[in-house]
Amino acid sequence: MRQEHQTQKINLPPGALVHIGQRLVDAPRITAIEYVDEAYSCRELGGDIEEALGAIRAFPDRKSVLWLNVDGLHEPKTIEAIGKAFNLHPLVREDVMNTELRPKLDEYEECIFMVLKMLDYDEAEEQIIVEQVSIVLGDGFVLTFQERVGDVFEAVRSRVKDNAGKIRKMKADYLAYRLLDAIIDHYFVALEALAEIVDRLEERLADTPDRVKADELHVLRREVLYLRKSITPARELIGTLARIEDPQLITPAVEPYFRDIHDHVVQVSESVEHTREVLGSMLDIYHASLSNKMNEVMKVLSIVTAIFIPLSFIAGVYGMNFRHMPELEEPLAYPVVLFAMLLIGGAIAWFTKRKRWW
Amino acid sequence: MRQEHQTQKINLPPGALVHIGQRLVDAPRITAIEYVDEAYSCRELGGDIEEALGAIRAFPDRKSVLWLNVDGLHEPKTIEAIGKAFNLHPLVREDVMNTELRPKLDEYEECIFMVLKMLDYDEAEEQIIVEQVSIVLGDGFVLTFQERVGDVFEAVRSRVKDNAGKIRKMKADYLAYRLLDAIIDHYFVALEALAEIVDRLEERLADTPDRVKADELHVLRREVLYLRKSITPARELIGTLARIEDPQLITPAVEPYFRDIHDHVVQVSESVEHTREVLGSMLDIYHASLSNKMNEVMKVLSIVTAIFIPLSFIAGVYGMNFRHMPELEEPLAYPVVLFAMLLIGGAIAWFTKRKRWW
Amino acid sequence: MRQEHQTQKINLPPGALVHIGQRLVDAPRITAIEYVDEAYSCRELGGDIEEALGAIRAFPDRKSVLWLNVDGLHEPKTIEAIGKAFNLHPLVREDVMNTELRPKLDEYEECIFMVLKMLDYDEAEEQIIVEQVSIVLGDGFVLTFQERVGDVFEAVRSRVKDNAGKIRKMKADYLAYRLLDAIIDHYFVALEALAEIVDRLEERLADTPDRVKADELHVLRREVLYLRKSITPARELIGTLARIEDPQLITPAVEPYFRDIHDHVVQVSESVEHTREVLGSMLDIYHASLSNKMNEVMKVLSIVTAIFIPLSFIAGVYGMNFRHMPELEEPLAYPVVLFAMLLIGGAIAWFTKRKRWW
Amino acid sequence: MRQEHQTQKINLPPGALVHIGQRLVDAPRITAIEYVDEAYSCRELGGDIEEALGAIRAFPDRKSVLWLNVDGLHEPKTIEAIGKAFNLHPLVREDVMNTELRPKLDEYEECIFMVLKMLDYDEAEEQIIVEQVSIVLGDGFVLTFQERVGDVFEAVRSRVKDNAGKIRKMKADYLAYRLLDAIIDHYFVALEALAEIVDRLEERLADTPDRVKADELHVLRREVLYLRKSITPARELIGTLARIEDPQLITPAVEPYFRDIHDHVVQVSESVEHTREVLGSMLDIYHASLSNKMNEVMKVLSIVTAIFIPLSFIAGVYGMNFRHMPELEEPLAYPVVLFAMLLIGGAIAWFTKRKRWW
Amino acid sequence: MRQEHQTQKINLPPGALVHIGQRLVDAPRITAIEYVDEAYSCRELGGDIEEALGAIRAFPDRKSVLWLNVDGLHEPKTIEAIGKAFNLHPLVREDVMNTELRPKLDEYEECIFMVLKMLDYDEAEEQIIVEQVSIVLGDGFVLTFQERVGDVFEAVRSRVKDNAGKIRKMKADYLAYRLLDAIIDHYFVALEALAEIVDRLEERLADTPDRVKADELHVLRREVLYLRKSITPARELIGTLARIEDPQLITPAVEPYFRDIHDHVVQVSESVEHTREVLGSMLDIYHASLSNKMNEVMKVLSIVTAIFIPLSFIAGVYGMNFRHMPELEEPLAYPVVLFAMLLIGGAIAWFTKRKRWW
Repeated sequence: MRQEHQTQKINLPPGALVHIGQRLVDAPRITAIEYVDEAYSCRELGGDIEEALGAIRAFPDRKSVLWLNVDGLHEPKTIEAIGKAFNLHPLVREDVMNTELRPKLDEYEECIFMVLKMLDYDEAEEQIIVEQVSIVLGDGFVLTFQERVGDVFEAVRSRVKDNAGKIRKMKADYLAYRLLDAIIDHYFVALEALAEIVDRLEERLADTPDRVKADELHVLRREVLYLRKSITPARELIGTLARIEDPQLITPAVEPYFRDIHDHVVQVSESVEHTREVLGSMLDIYHASLSNKMNEVMKVLSIVTAIFIPLSFIAGVYGMNFRHMPELEEPLAYPVVLFAMLLIGGAIAWFTKRKRWW
Repeated sequence: MRQEHQTQKINLPPGALVHIGQRLVDAPRITAIEYVDEAYSCRELGGDIEEALGAIRAFPDRKSVLWLNVDGLHEPKTIEAIGKAFNLHPLVREDVMNTELRPKLDEYEECIFMVLKMLDYDEAEEQIIVEQVSIVLGDGFVLTFQERVGDVFEAVRSRVKDNAGKIRKMKADYLAYRLLDAIIDHYFVALEALAEIVDRLEERLADTPDRVKADELHVLRREVLYLRKSITPARELIGTLARIEDPQLITPAVEPYFRDIHDHVVQVSESVEHTREVLGSMLDIYHASLSNKMNEVMKVLSIVTAIFIPLSFIAGVYGMNFRHMPELEEPLAYPVVLFAMLLIGGAIAWFTKRKRWW
Repeated sequence: MRQEHQTQKINLPPGALVHIGQRLVDAPRITAIEYVDEAYSCRELGGDIEEALGAIRAFPDRKSVLWLNVDGLHEPKTIEAIGKAFNLHPLVREDVMNTELRPKLDEYEECIFMVLKMLDYDEAEEQIIVEQVSIVLGDGFVLTFQERVGDVFEAVRSRVKDNAGKIRKMKADYLAYRLLDAIIDHYFVALEALAEIVDRLEERLADTPDRVKADELHVLRREVLYLRKSITPARELIGTLARIEDPQLITPAVEPYFRDIHDHVVQVSESVEHTREVLGSMLDIYHASLSNKMNEVMKVLSIVTAIFIPLSFIAGVYGMNFRHMPELEEPLAYPVVLFAMLLIGGAIAWFTKRKRWW
Repeated sequence: MRQEHQTQKINLPPGALVHIGQRLVDAPRITAIEYVDEAYSCRELGGDIEEALGAIRAFPDRKSVLWLNVDGLHEPKTIEAIGKAFNLHPLVREDVMNTELRPKLDEYEECIFMVLKMLDYDEAEEQIIVEQVSIVLGDGFVLTFQERVGDVFEAVRSRVKDNAGKIRKMKADYLAYRLLDAIIDHYFVALEALAEIVDRLEERLADTPDRVKADELHVLRREVLYLRKSITPARELIGTLARIEDPQLITPAVEPYFRDIHDHVVQVSESVEHTREVLGSMLDIYHASLSNKMNEVMKVLSIVTAIFIPLSFIAGVYGMNFRHMPELEEPLAYPVVLFAMLLIGGAIAWFTKRKRWW
Repeated sequence: MRQEHQTQKINLPPGALVHIGQRLVDAPRITAIEYVDEAYSCRELGGDIEEALGAIRAFPDRKSVLWLNVDGLHEPKTIEAIGKAFNLHPLVREDVMNTELRPKLDEYEECIFMVLKMLDYDEAEEQIIVEQVSIVLGDGFVLTFQERVGDVFEAVRSRVKDNAGKIRKMKADYLAYRLLDAIIDHYFVALEALAEIVDRLEERLADTPDRVKADELHVLRREVLYLRKSITPARELIGTLARIEDPQLITPAVEPYFRDIHDHVVQVSESVEHTREVLGSMLDIYHASLSNKMNEVMKVLSIVTAIFIPLSFIAGVYGMNFRHMPELEEPLAYPVVLFAMLLIGGAIAWFTKRKRWW
């Protein structure tokens, strides 16, 4: 059971910066992308991060959009520095480092903080990979925090770089939308991978139900329950986001886009629900198939038994060693008894056949 | 599992015109119908579509209603041209080409965009056919986008042509209502076809449960789950539509009609739910029937065994070759033993009968 | 599966008067009752219905209440005439003729239109009869449309005639209440009949579970699902009715009465739900009883087998024809072996008894 | 199935005073308690009730609180008299006499009318007793109607008499609160009794599942469903009561008390729900235990069979009477065959043991 | 079944101070902590508690925060004294002493009263310990009431003492937040312990399902149901708390913190729900595994039977003692019959193998 390990934080004050989760990269990597319609810069921040951030943070007077991406969340120092530079609430700093949160959206005065699960499918391992990503949408900037170096945001990055579409003409809220859209599009990947596994299992269930182990269904159901746990709160999150009325942070032009990803996330979460119900139905069928199989075996057993046990009894009777068994002396007794056995066996076979036991 | 293939769109910007789905017609066919009470024109647009559309789009000063129907969605060029001509939001253009959307309604400033599933029953293949249709209701025009050339809208088309009823006296919203009504009326066709299959299966379940394969029930349940996935969001969609207050697009006179199709769609979706519950109940009965059948077989097996195994044992005893078995010499021993066997067998039969095992 | 046959209406315009359902009477019978506190008239309308209705419809200046009851819905002409006389919306006219609607309430500007199911229990056939009734409550008049000549409204009719209670002192809304009350009171009849069948089945299930066929439970569950489908929307309908604020149609004095039938319909629908859960529990018990029965049989089978098979084996050993089997020559061998068999059989019996297998 | 018998009322007008339920007392007993802080009177009303009530009803100018309790509801005359004296709505009068109502609260202009179920546990009969009580809270008076003489309200009565606590310092609404509190406290009694039965059954299920009859679980589930039917609407009722804003009837000082009993009733109804789920889980366990038991028996059967049937076959082979069976003549054949049988039997035993079949 | 024992309170007036629950400490221990940013005092109150409280209660003019913690709730005298000193509503006093309440929040005019369950995991006993805690948040003070001396609040206490973080710079509402946070953090401990047990059981279920007793699953499900009963109302409670708008008691600066623990409690309660569903799935798998196991055994049984019973019958035939059985005299009869037996046995084995029965 993939259980959260929140217990490490017990007895710590709120805002305490403790990393909860596995350490997936060696050192955090910070990339700062800044752009306006006609300009674009991308730097990797190293050395004295606080200083670098301080320099960057002087940008509000500029009209540019700043996107700061952090890969690797285990260093409190880094998170602390970013938190200070962007004036984030202590609870935001804390939550960024906790990789086992439920997807959620918190509205603060100067920013919107979102926690989401990123889903991907590892074809080699045949399993769904879940990673947490935090997004802070502020006035003129977007911060993203990932557990490891990933490629989910790569497409967005290259579109910003190439000034493709209207992304460089829009504000930070549109960037946030593009990032959310990239995350949710990956949900479909995970879901399709799962659907394919379900499909294969379903086929095997129809063809050779006795080869399927109950365990496989259970593992799949857990996987779906787990997916649901990641996706359902995201639905609620995006719904809240689409309803936020904060013209400072979210411009009206972006609203249809937020409604659009809301539609997507609703579709994803309904597909998860659908898969869950299909799995439930498959379990029923699995049970029924096992019963059917067993019935078939039982029937044959009962017929073989019902035919031969009475015949064996007859043979047993004439195998008794009583001195006075007049039938034994009759010359035709043996063929008559054999014929009688044939009749009895045939009668039982006919009777069971008529009863449709086989 | 009929899974959506949304993954083709990953890493593409919003509004990217990618066709998702199967290509069902060779070339898109565009039909433009324009009417006022006293006049009607129907043209098929070919050649330079952009030019043709541009010409058509000059109509707002006219009081006519324009209905543009597109069969075949795989050509981005066509959709692009229409999108520009009617000033559709980029997200609408994108959604029109994605045939694997969940039914939804999006309100834009100048139009209402609806995605619905069209259901039909293919008698030859004995399966329900699902096709997506998009409807854009704008000020003075209705655009419909279908995957293939179909006949669902044929009745509406001929009524417009014949000036039957009040359709040519009403605005574009009434035309949209008539189209939605045509779609939802076809839901009943699919549902009835399904209900008939359920009925036939139910009868077979009552008569010869052992001839029913668990798989058949599973396939039916999946079909119902799939139907529900198409119909339930439509219920919500029509509900939203009936509540929209936009006098520019929806005139008060049409409101009762929207409420009316809402009633229809509620009825359809409740019928799906009902069918689902009936199927659930049938599965229970199926399990019970199998158990019953097996019990019956088991009982006979147990009785045959319980009667003959002890008798065979007695026969076995008197078949032993001990030299000193005084009974064997008795002249009456054989008939006595036979009679004893009859008694014992009879007693067991009577006992099991009294216990109601058969 | 009692499925709706809405498909006949496909491709027809809204308001098209097509009768959907079975024709249950020969010719429609129209009864017009008009009353004020001190006067009462009851006429059966025949001949030129339009004329008759036109005459009647001149009554608004009078203070009387008009109750027009129609038995038999298959003649579009009649419905058309009434619809015109009372200025009913085309959708109302259409819905009146469709006897397979879901119970619903539509508010129009000048009237309230209600569709309900009337339930009755046919003692002879042992089945619940469902009939649709439509009620139109307008300013000063109530129209009722029934599929056949029934006696559900008889009591109301006679009270109006006899000027019993306050019915002749109240407006049309009170008459509508009395009619709804009569319909919902009959729900209790159907429910009690059903409850009695459930009771009888439950008793049989406790006494002789193996005599109950799984099918009986299934039929009952379908019946309950069907009842629920008729009653649950009625609950919603009456709830809406109780909240309508239209002083023209519903006077404040009648509100407590509407709340009262709301209580009734809630009670009915909870009873249906209750019955459904009891049936679910009965199915569980049924399964458990079958398993129990089978276990009992299995146990006896296993014990008989476990006792006699080893004994038969021993007998078989001493029935072998080897020349050199020294035991066979011993004079006491036979009784010793018999005694050993007794011991072994007893030991197995004692062991299985201690294990509580019987 | 404890079904309501509402059918007696069919075709009767609203407000018709018909007693529905069993007659549990000989004659109705009416007790009138009147008190202010410094004074208290308690009279049993007999003789001409109308006159007595008329006298009492002249009290509004006094500041006292009047509590009229009626035990026994089968006499329309009494209810009629009280209804007139306190100016109760006809529907209230009718509902008081119908002991098979769903718990509900109706707000009338001059009073609040509540119907509740009173639960008690009969230790002798080991069953939960349900009785209906109606409470009318008016301006300066509380009327209570019970089916029989009970002791649920006794504690309240004696506190009023003894002027204990602040009851005599408060208004009628506080008295109503105390009465409701007494009723709901008794729910806990019923629930604990039920919980104890469930506990006992659970223990038996863990120890000797084969001694438990499926029926017992069913009866318990029905009991819980029945309890729920009585308690859940009470939750809603008290919730409504706590939200009523009618300073005439409910003073702000009493509000926290109403919220308090709301907490209680929520706790009770959640406990019922909890018990229901525990019972559901117990049923699952019951099924599993039966399967387990059966498996155990089946295993032993299969092993005994699998060991001895092949051995018996060998014995049978050497019991054949062919003239030319060379083995039979060998002096060592018998011990060799016996040893081979031992080996084969042992091998099968070892194989099945390794397979963990026993 | 851990059932509440509310029945002790029946017939007692509201506000009656009766201790419901087990007495877990000898004498109540009262600790009074008072602090401002620059000062801190901690006293244990003994001797004349009323006097001590009176002295303390004179603090409103000071700007300090007072935290009064009571361990041990069985002495009405103490609760009474505190209740008077802090002017608590009688219902609050009563509820503090009742340790079997459902988690709830009551808003009074001068304070907010909360009842919560504290969960801890006893590693030695391998069971979850539930304890009730009441928190009163007033203007400038927080009262906490625990059943026994615990260490859940210890971390908060030491942070106050050490002036760590901002706790001494904030008001009483922040202290309340820290206490709630400490309680809810412990929910994760209980949940993880439970998850580990579920994990272990799941592994055993996959490896050796026949070693798992149905009872273990049942006990676990009850445990989860019990946890849910404690946690779910807490979710609602914290939600209400986060929405309270009472600037006197809750300052805006603390709101994000309340929202934060709301997120936590939602996460906990979803994890409980998740665990419940996983357990449900495990039960299904358990049933399926048992069926599978049984099928496997049944198959082998049926094959052994199906092979040897016909062979034994043949041996029985040639063991009959008829005088005239010509085959018995043939020199090759014996080997031919043996070979025929081999063929028949092989054929049955091949047939059953092809049918995939083993």
